[in-house]
Amino acid sequence: MNIKGKTIFFDNPPVITGSAGVCGKKEGEGPLASDFDAIFEDTTMGQQSYELAESAMLNDAIIRSLANAKVSSSDVDFILSGDLLDQCMGSAFAIKDLQIPSIGLYGACSTMALSLSVGSMLVDAGANCVVAATSSHFCSSERQFRFPLEYGGQRPPSAQWTVTGAGSAVIHSMGDGIKIKAVSIGTICDMGITDANNMGAAMAPAAEKTIYEFLRDTNTKPSDYDMILTGDLGLTGSELLYELMENEHGVDIRKQHKDCGLLIYDLEEQDVNSGGSGCGCSGSVLCSHIMKKMKKNKLKKVLFVATGALMSPTSSKQGNPIPGVAHAVLLEV
Amino acid sequence: MNIKGKTIFFDNPPVITGSAGVCGKKEGEGPLASDFDAIFEDTTMGQQSYELAESAMLNDAIIRSLANAKVSSSDVDFILSGDLLDQCMGSAFAIKDLQIPSIGLYGACSTMALSLSVGSMLVDAGANCVVAATSSHFCSSERQFRFPLEYGGQRPPSAQWTVTGAGSAVIHSMGDGIKIKAVSIGTICDMGITDANNMGAAMAPAAEKTIYEFLRDTNTKPSDYDMILTGDLGLTGSELLYELMENEHGVDIRKQHKDCGLLIYDLEEQDVNSGGSGCGCSGSVLCSHIMKKMKKNKLKKVLFVATGALMSPTSSKQGNPIPGVAHAVLLEV
Repeated sequence: MNIKGKTIFFDNPPVITGSAGVCGKKEGEGPLASDFDAIFEDTTMGQQSYELAESAMLNDAIIRSLANAKVSSSDVDFILSGDLLDQCMGSAFAIKDLQIPSIGLYGACSTMALSLSVGSMLVDAGANCVVAATSSHFCSSERQFRFPLEYGGQRPPSAQWTVTGAGSAVIHSMGDGIKIKAVSIGTICDMGITDANNMGAAMAPAAEKTIYEFLRDTNTKPSDYDMILTGDLGLTGSELLYELMENEHGVDIRKQHKDCGLLIYDLEEQDVNSGGSGCGCSGSVLCSHIMKKMKKNKLKKVLFVATGALMSPTSSKQGNPIPGVAHAVLLEV
Repeated sequence: MNIKGKTIFFDNPPVITGSAGVCGKKEGEGPLASDFDAIFEDTTMGQQSYELAESAMLNDAIIRSLANAKVSSSDVDFILSGDLLDQCMGSAFAIKDLQIPSIGLYGACSTMALSLSVGSMLVDAGANCVVAATSSHFCSSERQFRFPLEYGGQRPPSAQWTVTGAGSAVIHSMGDGIKIKAVSIGTICDMGITDANNMGAAMAPAAEKTIYEFLRDTNTKPSDYDMILTGDLGLTGSELLYELMENEHGVDIRKQHKDCGLLIYDLEEQDVNSGGSGCGCSGSVLCSHIMKKMKKNKLKKVLFVATGALMSPTSSKQGNPIPGVAHAVLLEV
């Protein structure tokens, strides 16, 4: 790999040879229903807790992605996974019985881009096959970050709905599939946002920085991409991103921009305020809907930029700001 | 790099060109006092919370390691860091103002080995310079995982004392320093241990597996190493590791084995029960005491195996087992 500015270019692009995106009941009632690899009507997954339900869903996505790539778990050199639960327990319990060397990641909602980025660099270094995965679950997230589900608190318009879902992608050093041409690891942006019900505002500056630097390093413009896909900025964050890109850099990304948090739900019908969020939002949408479109050549060049809001229940209660981070992955067929 | 079995060998070994280990007051009263790069008598670090104190200490270790390696933060391609706090907030707030592309890791107390392993693979892939770092803080950990400090609960003999400390190492693709000859990413071991006051038992089987596989893949025996250094198995976990290695594999590692959790405190005088623990335990000991000994040629070949107990306050309260993981790094001068 070669690093130019903040962007990592691959001479021999790693290839996504298989993927799977799975989700819960609400996501299965949204516009992307036909593209998910599995929709679980019972989002408890038959488990005794929402946390273990999240792990079961992530495990399911990983197994489906391995089947899709036609590899067994013993063929995998490393699995890279992380999630929003304290100490990344969603991933630990999803992976523990697979017997794959495990690299735990923490990138909040940017995890799908972080796992693809680090995973593709490890393949470039010499690994033959890695798995990049992540998950989130509305019920485990809500009670951890906000309130007990039974509380039924009102949510402001800028609040987002944590997606119940998981995504997993298998990356090989060669083969047929979607090529990872370049990646970018983001630096952390702290704009002093403290409102945990406005994650879009916390993350938009990080997305702006990573997208701008990627366009600069690759000497490209938005129209060179079929899609610039953010993870879960939602309505509020997407509007902020447009403003920041225009005001700071004179770049208009409106035509190419989509956001997984806006794609996954019908915002008029599904009562999700500003859109979907959570690691599983971009994880499930990218690894099902987007990758299926790419395999059918309906999308050829996608710049995937997932953002994460670096906060914990403790850091928020202590009045700390919510720094954001965004990692980018250039996908091409 | 070449992967043989579970071990990753480097043809051109990445080099640790600088490091720093810092700690708090209690650790500064222990046997390794003279080797730490800084001892903070005031473990609040002048911050308003223990969590921000941990971040300040980690930030200090990172800055010192950069100075030790004679590089500035703008020379660093990636920083890899993680910690025990929910959503890895210790690292997020330590790193946020450094403007270095940030890869968040979660490996519990194995993080120093995980960050060195992944960091060295990224250098092998083409990065020029990366930083691997981690931290823990007794006060932030204790109130998050166990009880409020003021509660003053009794601790069983198998319990360990979370180290207040941080470690950071700078890895370059070439240069003078300690060579990383090989690394190994562990698979997760779940032996059904559920006692959060007996982390040694939860982690020993993972250490056994990783050490055994490393010896097998490298065709070496314990006497080929000056030291086999585990992270924080403590007294209880170290004894279990000896038994497991002997009973399962007929291998005796007693002569070569040391444990950072046993090195950092005087167990007879400092009232720490089974020894030290936490990401900052192996982080601070490896990046100060051990690396200084290696630079003076007093240790030439060290197999560093840090273990992590994959648990959260939620997973423990729900009665789930505590899976363990261990990653290995072969250091040579």
